[in-house]
Amino acid sequence: MERVFDEELQFLKEKILRMAALVEDALSLAIDALKEQKEEPARAVLKNEENINVLDVEVDEICMRLLALRQPMAGDLRFITAGMKIGSDLERMGDLAVNVAELALDLARLPLLKPLIDIPRMSLLAQAMVRDAIEAFINRDDALGRDVCLRDDEVDALDDQIFRELLTFMMEDPHNIRRAVALILVSRNLERIADHATNIAEDVIYMVRGKTIKHHIEKNGIPRSTENQA
Amino acid sequence: MERVFDEELQFLKEKILRMAALVEDALSLAIDALKEQKEEPARAVLKNEENINVLDVEVDEICMRLLALRQPMAGDLRFITAGMKIGSDLERMGDLAVNVAELALDLARLPLLKPLIDIPRMSLLAQAMVRDAIEAFINRDDALGRDVCLRDDEVDALDDQIFRELLTFMMEDPHNIRRAVALILVSRNLERIADHATNIAEDVIYMVRGKTIKHHIEKNGIPRSTENQA
Repeated sequence: MERVFDEELQFLKEKILRMAALVEDALSLAIDALKEQKEEPARAVLKNEENINVLDVEVDEICMRLLALRQPMAGDLRFITAGMKIGSDLERMGDLAVNVAELALDLARLPLLKPLIDIPRMSLLAQAMVRDAIEAFINRDDALGRDVCLRDDEVDALDDQIFRELLTFMMEDPHNIRRAVALILVSRNLERIADHATNIAEDVIYMVRGKTIKHHIEKNGIPRSTENQA
Repeated sequence: MERVFDEELQFLKEKILRMAALVEDALSLAIDALKEQKEEPARAVLKNEENINVLDVEVDEICMRLLALRQPMAGDLRFITAGMKIGSDLERMGDLAVNVAELALDLARLPLLKPLIDIPRMSLLAQAMVRDAIEAFINRDDALGRDVCLRDDEVDALDDQIFRELLTFMMEDPHNIRRAVALILVSRNLERIADHATNIAEDVIYMVRGKTIKHHIEKNGIPRSTENQA
């Protein structure tokens, strides 16, 4: 029984790792499409979304089965409920990557407004946050989770900077408006992906400590002393 | 034991109803601030966010306690896991309402671009979706859940229409750009609130039927025959 439980937990981890890898790929392809004005990588994102959605349903089913049949306690219970939430977050990130891919498709038909530097940088930050949030989950590593939460500010700052720069492009020439608005929306989608990674990281910290830090991070900083109440 | 369990479920329902009411209020205040160019209702939204966050943590704690101590099966298990997800969705909606309130504060200091008709309409649609999604959850009403899912298209269509109209405003006069971009972002935030209501409705349908319809609605329409596998 114990062994079966461990195998199922392992299975859950693998599904979530696979989902996260697909989300990272989707993001990377969408930004490639945007940067290089190519349609194929954007179309690949639209095509691959289905795989993320299928995994979301599978993750949910595994978690429900584990909850119903194994009646886990304490740490395992929190691992499984975190897994459910993480599945939902990754699925939404997949949707957001699709939004970016669709914006890239719109922009591929128009001349490039400017060489893109900050948006790809923002995307790399968001991808790293996703990767590390999932690693924090798999290894029950609350220190890494805390690190991910803190990086969200950097993404928000880039989003603001991109927004202001694109506003000036629009003011200078109305021909820039359509493309600049599309890039503002890309930036907002990336910012939301980073938010989801932050949500995952918060869930991981709760899972490890058995105590929520949600809604305390932004205002008070994250307490460094780990009051492990698990 | 049975009676205590029912009381705790009731407690969970009340917390979620309270959360949903706060989200609806936040949205309504944020749109008032936007329409009437008043700062007070927007500031009230920022102030009230904390209450939504506190309820999110409480909902999570109730659900974890129910899962750990009561080891619920089948329908009750799905009710509780749906409750956890709904808490997260409502909390994100609260964040999105805060975004709208912040945009309203920015816009309150500038002349009104145009009388707002479609954005308040979109907000009312989103509010009704939230209210009905939560009612569907409380009453385990999958038909109402399905209805909520179908209304998401109307919100998306309004978002597209608002976007196109605001683009023309920007093209006509660069003085409109800053305000028009802010309104586009308001519209996107409302669209995402409706998405979260749709997510809740999908979770309700799964909860009632014991079978996921996620990721099938958009493409294939929602099956009318309820294959209740609960």
